[in-house]
Amino acid sequence: MSIQTLRKKIADCQNPTVAGLDPDFSKLPSFLCRQAIERYGKTLEAAADAVWQFNKAIINALCDIVPAVKPQAAYYELLGWPGMRALSETIAYAHQKGLFVITDGKRGDIGTTMSAYARAHLGTVEVDGSILTPFGADALTINAYLGSDGVLPALEVCKARDTCIFVLGKTSNPSSGEIQDKLVDGEPVYAMLGDLCEHWSQMAEGGTSLLSLSANKGRYGMVGLVAGATYPSQLAELRQKLPHTFFLVPGYGAQGGGAKDVAPAFDENGDGAIINSSRAILYAWQKEQCDERDFAGAARREALRMKENLNAVLQNR
Amino acid sequence: MSIQTLRKKIADCQNPTVAGLDPDFSKLPSFLCRQAIERYGKTLEAAADAVWQFNKAIINALCDIVPAVKPQAAYYELLGWPGMRALSETIAYAHQKGLFVITDGKRGDIGTTMSAYARAHLGTVEVDGSILTPFGADALTINAYLGSDGVLPALEVCKARDTCIFVLGKTSNPSSGEIQDKLVDGEPVYAMLGDLCEHWSQMAEGGTSLLSLSANKGRYGMVGLVAGATYPSQLAELRQKLPHTFFLVPGYGAQGGGAKDVAPAFDENGDGAIINSSRAILYAWQKEQCDERDFAGAARREALRMKENLNAVLQNR
Repeated sequence: MSIQTLRKKIADCQNPTVAGLDPDFSKLPSFLCRQAIERYGKTLEAAADAVWQFNKAIINALCDIVPAVKPQAAYYELLGWPGMRALSETIAYAHQKGLFVITDGKRGDIGTTMSAYARAHLGTVEVDGSILTPFGADALTINAYLGSDGVLPALEVCKARDTCIFVLGKTSNPSSGEIQDKLVDGEPVYAMLGDLCEHWSQMAEGGTSLLSLSANKGRYGMVGLVAGATYPSQLAELRQKLPHTFFLVPGYGAQGGGAKDVAPAFDENGDGAIINSSRAILYAWQKEQCDERDFAGAARREALRMKENLNAVLQNR
Repeated sequence: MSIQTLRKKIADCQNPTVAGLDPDFSKLPSFLCRQAIERYGKTLEAAADAVWQFNKAIINALCDIVPAVKPQAAYYELLGWPGMRALSETIAYAHQKGLFVITDGKRGDIGTTMSAYARAHLGTVEVDGSILTPFGADALTINAYLGSDGVLPALEVCKARDTCIFVLGKTSNPSSGEIQDKLVDGEPVYAMLGDLCEHWSQMAEGGTSLLSLSANKGRYGMVGLVAGATYPSQLAELRQKLPHTFFLVPGYGAQGGGAKDVAPAFDENGDGAIINSSRAILYAWQKEQCDERDFAGAARREALRMKENLNAVLQNR
């Protein structure tokens, strides 16, 4: 699925929210862990099964109100290969429920190795004529510190399967400035990455001008940017500077960003960005102090609150 | 295992080579693929089994002449969760054969997410009191574009398990300069990352001075740097500037770097760096045009040639 499909799903739901699936086994409702350990013992398989049961319930609770989910690869890798199997099952189930899936892997390598990452997460692999899908997400986050050699091979995979990437620009964490804010010829590094995203989208369109990108396929290209909710003025600056770059905005909720902070990420049509919330939705039952067995209901209530807050701010701009 | 153990293994082998395990299923000896498909059908399990059989033979052929192997995570992810199982089996087998294992994952995230990556690859996870090892490597490559928030959580894991990280500085690819060579206050970004490595090693030692790092634990800290063989003058500059930072040097062999190019990575004792070669060793049978069933023998012959070439240059400096 492409950025254009994601935009359509956002419009259909009237909700520019992506729910992060960052399930830390040690924080899951205890009944899920107990059930999994009864079945598989004190193993990685048990932990991965608890994560998978948790995700399934969260997806069921959210699939008619959010357009997308974003599994965070680290929490699946933490559970070894059974965790990676849970990632693959989660993505397949999310697709079955009509959701757009962004794997947050922040991958970055070069040449054939980058192509392997992109095929792993966004494409296919051939085994003696059989075409297989290793993980099958619609989008992958990318760390472009290695330059174009780390992005163009991924775009080849995206073009073949109509998938997309989000390149890290300005991340939401306190120390993001150590490298990203440094000035290069008077411009911060994150803004240079933003410019490169516009350039890479253009190249992916076959080198035609960005104007034709706009005329032919809608305004937004295949290369999105990660720009954090915790830096609203940089968000505003990037939105103005990068008219063809769709934003993935982390840092809402648990990391401190609010609906007003993310408003500058959107264009004048309320398009052009999707806001991530992970912990605030996943662990809403803890904040609500409701029965842990109602974790999915609490997640849905929190996601609905977030939708309302975002729409209130967007409508009153 | 720590950087100090790696240095000891290098000295014992008299060989500063790490053999990259980047097994692209489509390039493996055909008899291995046929055997695996006979056993598992045209599946990801088959591809992962061929990779595992290949790695086992390569490890058997190299374990008495190289100190370390470096599996490239992308090629395992490409085969989905069965590929990740092959990664875990490969690491366990390499340890059994006494090798130091660097997982080349170029991971980078923040806070608890970065901690999850580090525990996945370098640490342990607890399931109801049971301490489990998801992948269990000795070192992990890290992309530090997110700053200290993406490094310090990994160092906490390293301290607990005596493992280490290598931060991307100057990578070996042609487009590395797009971001890494940009000047910040007159200094390139890659050199700034190098300075940060010295700083992070110092912090990991509990904030004592680098002098005490040198006095107490040998000259090299827990945070190494990736610096490419294809940029020898930058290698020389970094070696002089970063006396406590061990280098992982990619780009030898297939990417064009030779023994003379990597010589500047070493200190005056011939210590301080390890040189990676992946494709030239793994696919040596193709270059030799020998029987594909002798792929492991060809890999050993190529690794011995590389050892000779490196030692010749190091002894004649």
